[in-house]
Amino acid sequence: MFSVAVKDHIMIAHSFRGEIFGPAQKLHGATYIVTVQFKLAQLDEDGLVIDIGKAIAILKEVLTPLNYQNLDTLEQFKGINTTTEYMAYYIHQQISERVSSFFKGVLKVTLDESHIAWGSYEAEVK
Amino acid sequence: MFSVAVKDHIMIAHSFRGEIFGPAQKLHGATYIVTVQFKLAQLDEDGLVIDIGKAIAILKEVLTPLNYQNLDTLEQFKGINTTTEYMAYYIHQQISERVSSFFKGVLKVTLDESHIAWGSYEAEVK
Amino acid sequence: MFSVAVKDHIMIAHSFRGEIFGPAQKLHGATYIVTVQFKLAQLDEDGLVIDIGKAIAILKEVLTPLNYQNLDTLEQFKGINTTTEYMAYYIHQQISERVSSFFKGVLKVTLDESHIAWGSYEAEVK
Amino acid sequence: MFSVAVKDHIMIAHSFRGEIFGPAQKLHGATYIVTVQFKLAQLDEDGLVIDIGKAIAILKEVLTPLNYQNLDTLEQFKGINTTTEYMAYYIHQQISERVSSFFKGVLKVTLDESHIAWGSYEAEVK
Amino acid sequence: MFSVAVKDHIMIAHSFRGEIFGPAQKLHGATYIVTVQFKLAQLDEDGLVIDIGKAIAILKEVLTPLNYQNLDTLEQFKGINTTTEYMAYYIHQQISERVSSFFKGVLKVTLDESHIAWGSYEAEVK
Amino acid sequence: MFSVAVKDHIMIAHSFRGEIFGPAQKLHGATYIVTVQFKLAQLDEDGLVIDIGKAIAILKEVLTPLNYQNLDTLEQFKGINTTTEYMAYYIHQQISERVSSFFKGVLKVTLDESHIAWGSYEAEVK
Repeated sequence: MFSVAVKDHIMIAHSFRGEIFGPAQKLHGATYIVTVQFKLAQLDEDGLVIDIGKAIAILKEVLTPLNYQNLDTLEQFKGINTTTEYMAYYIHQQISERVSSFFKGVLKVTLDESHIAWGSYEAEVK
Repeated sequence: MFSVAVKDHIMIAHSFRGEIFGPAQKLHGATYIVTVQFKLAQLDEDGLVIDIGKAIAILKEVLTPLNYQNLDTLEQFKGINTTTEYMAYYIHQQISERVSSFFKGVLKVTLDESHIAWGSYEAEVK
Repeated sequence: MFSVAVKDHIMIAHSFRGEIFGPAQKLHGATYIVTVQFKLAQLDEDGLVIDIGKAIAILKEVLTPLNYQNLDTLEQFKGINTTTEYMAYYIHQQISERVSSFFKGVLKVTLDESHIAWGSYEAEVK
Repeated sequence: MFSVAVKDHIMIAHSFRGEIFGPAQKLHGATYIVTVQFKLAQLDEDGLVIDIGKAIAILKEVLTPLNYQNLDTLEQFKGINTTTEYMAYYIHQQISERVSSFFKGVLKVTLDESHIAWGSYEAEVK
Repeated sequence: MFSVAVKDHIMIAHSFRGEIFGPAQKLHGATYIVTVQFKLAQLDEDGLVIDIGKAIAILKEVLTPLNYQNLDTLEQFKGINTTTEYMAYYIHQQISERVSSFFKGVLKVTLDESHIAWGSYEAEVK
Repeated sequence: MFSVAVKDHIMIAHSFRGEIFGPAQKLHGATYIVTVQFKLAQLDEDGLVIDIGKAIAILKEVLTPLNYQNLDTLEQFKGINTTTEYMAYYIHQQISERVSSFFKGVLKVTLDESHIAWGSYEAEVK
C-alpha cells in the first residue's frame, strides 16, 4: 500500500453542548493542524499516488471556508458538536467529493489540536 | 474509522538480559513519550470517540505507578525484558482494563524512546 | 548561562480590531502551545535553575484562567488586540509576579500558534 | 500487533519527467527523513520485534549508497520518476531483502520530504 | 524583547567544493525548512511585531526563485559554497532588503536541513 | 551571528538527592536528546561555522561514555545532582575541550528530557 500526505491548518472558534465537555462548553477555539493522507495500492504511470501540489490545493480549498470562523455560526454545523473527530470526518467528506472522480483509494484525515491530543477519520473515497 | 489520541510521558530506569542488547544490558533509563490512540467505527451522541479529558486521566492513572521507577524492581516485570514494545503491550493491558466497560474499539499504544526510535502495540479492547 | 523550560497549552477564542488583520478580525480561535524558559547564570545548591515540577505548576496556574475562554470577554484584555506576541507578554507578566520572590533571572515565553508560526516575549524578571 | 520503528535520513538530487510535476521537472533535491517500521504479531523470546541496533544498521546500509547522490544518474532509477512514494517502495524492497531470512512480518517505510508532505509504502516482507 | 516567526521550505540541488565536504562534494540536494524570526523591543499600535500574513508573503517571495533549483547554476552563488549557514545569510539579506523600510529590528533566519542538523544567521536589519 | 547545530541522544539512569526532587529521588532514567549549537561571527573560507560531520563525530565521542550508564555510579558525578541543566553544562565542558583548538565561538548545549521539558547551558569556548 502506497500513501502520500500533506498538511495545512485552520484557526477556529467553537463551543460544545453536553456536560461531558466541562469548561469546553464555553466559547473557546483551536488551531487544527490538518493532515490528509491518500492511500492507494498502485502508483500511476508518473509514479504518483496523487500530485502533491494538487493535494495541497484541494486541502486549501476545503479549509478556506472554515478558517477564521466561529463554527457555531456556520449552517452546516447547526446542532452538531464540532469535536476534533467530527471535524476530521467533515473534512474527509469535503475532500472525498473533490477527488472521487480521479482518486479511487482510502483517505485519512488527522487533526492535531495540541501537542498532546489529536483525532482522525479514515474511509474509502466513494 | 474514527480515532482520538492523547499523550503523556514517564521517566524510568531498567536493564535488559540477553547478549543481543549489548551495552543496554547495563542499568540505564529512558523517557517514554506515550501516545494512546482509541479507534472506533462510530461517534457517540456527543460526537466523541472518547472524552479527551477522561482519556488523559486514565493514561495518567496508568503511568503514575511506573513514573520515576526502576522497572527491574517492580513485581509485575520480574523475569521480563521491559523493551519498548513490551511496555507498549503492558500499558495497553492496563488501559484496556480501565476502559473495557465503556469503550468497545481498538487501542494502540505507542512509546517514543528517542527522536529516532519508537515501539507500539495495537489490539482490540476485550 | 543555564536555562530550563517547560510546556503546556491553552485553547482560546478571540478576534482582532484593525484592517491589517483581514479575516482574523472575525471571531476565531487558537491552540497556543506555551513554552516558558527560565535563564540564570548560576545553578543553586541542588543543581537547578528552577524545579521543573514547580515551573509546570506555576505555568498551569497562569494558564487555567485563560483556557477555554473567549479572550474578547475578559476584563484584562479590554481594548487590547490579543495577538500571539501580546499574549506572550501577558503570560510573561503573570509568571514574573509569581516567581520574582525566588527567581532572579530572565524569562522567555513562546507561543506556538501553528506548525508554521509563533511569537515570544523575553525580559528579566523584576 | 507489535511494531518498532527507527529513523535516519538522506540528502539527494533528482528531477522528474512529466508536465504534472511543473517546476519539479528541473533538477532540484530533497532531504528525506526515512522511518522504517517493523510490524509483527508476536514478540520473540527476548521481548523484541527486531533489535533496534540491528534495524538502525540495516537502514544505514540501505541508505548509504543513496546519500549525497543525484538519483537521475543511478542505474537502478533509469526511466523511473523517483517520487517520494516510489523511493519509499524502493527502500522497502532493499530492506526486505536484508531482513526476509529472519523477519516474517510487515514493513512500512515513510519518507518525510518536508514539514508538510510525506509518502510511504507498506507491505509484507517476502 | 518581542518576536514573531514564520516557516516555509525549499527543495534544492547543489554541490560543495573542498575536501572537508567529503561525499557532499557530489551533486546532491536538500529540503530546507526555513524559519524567519523578527525581533523588536516594542509592539506597534496593533499589538504586532510584524503582520504574520505579510511575513509569510515576504518569505514566499524570497524562497520562490530558489525553490526547485540547482543552486550551482544560479548567478548569485557562483564561486560560493551554498552551505546551510551561508544560505541562512543569503535569505537574511533578501528579507532585510524587503522589510528595512518598515521593520527596524533584528532578523534571525534558521534552516533545518534534517531532523538532526540546522544552521542560522542573525543580525540587525539595516 | 552564524550558527550550526547537530543532534544525538543518550539513555541514562540516575537519582537525585534533596527533598525538592520528590519522587525523582528514586532511581529512574531519561532519554536526553542533545543538541549542540556552535555560534560564530564569521564563516571560514569553506563557508562553514564548523563541519557538520565533524560536529556529529565530536558529539558522539562525548556521549558514548555516558550512554547506557547509571550516572550515579560514574566517578565524575560523585556528589553531584545530574540534573538536565547540569548535564548540559557537563557536556558543554566536554565538547569545549575537544573544539577549543580550532573553534573560537559560543557553544550552546540543550537537552530535551521529554516533549514538555528541556534544559540548556551556553557559554564561550575557552
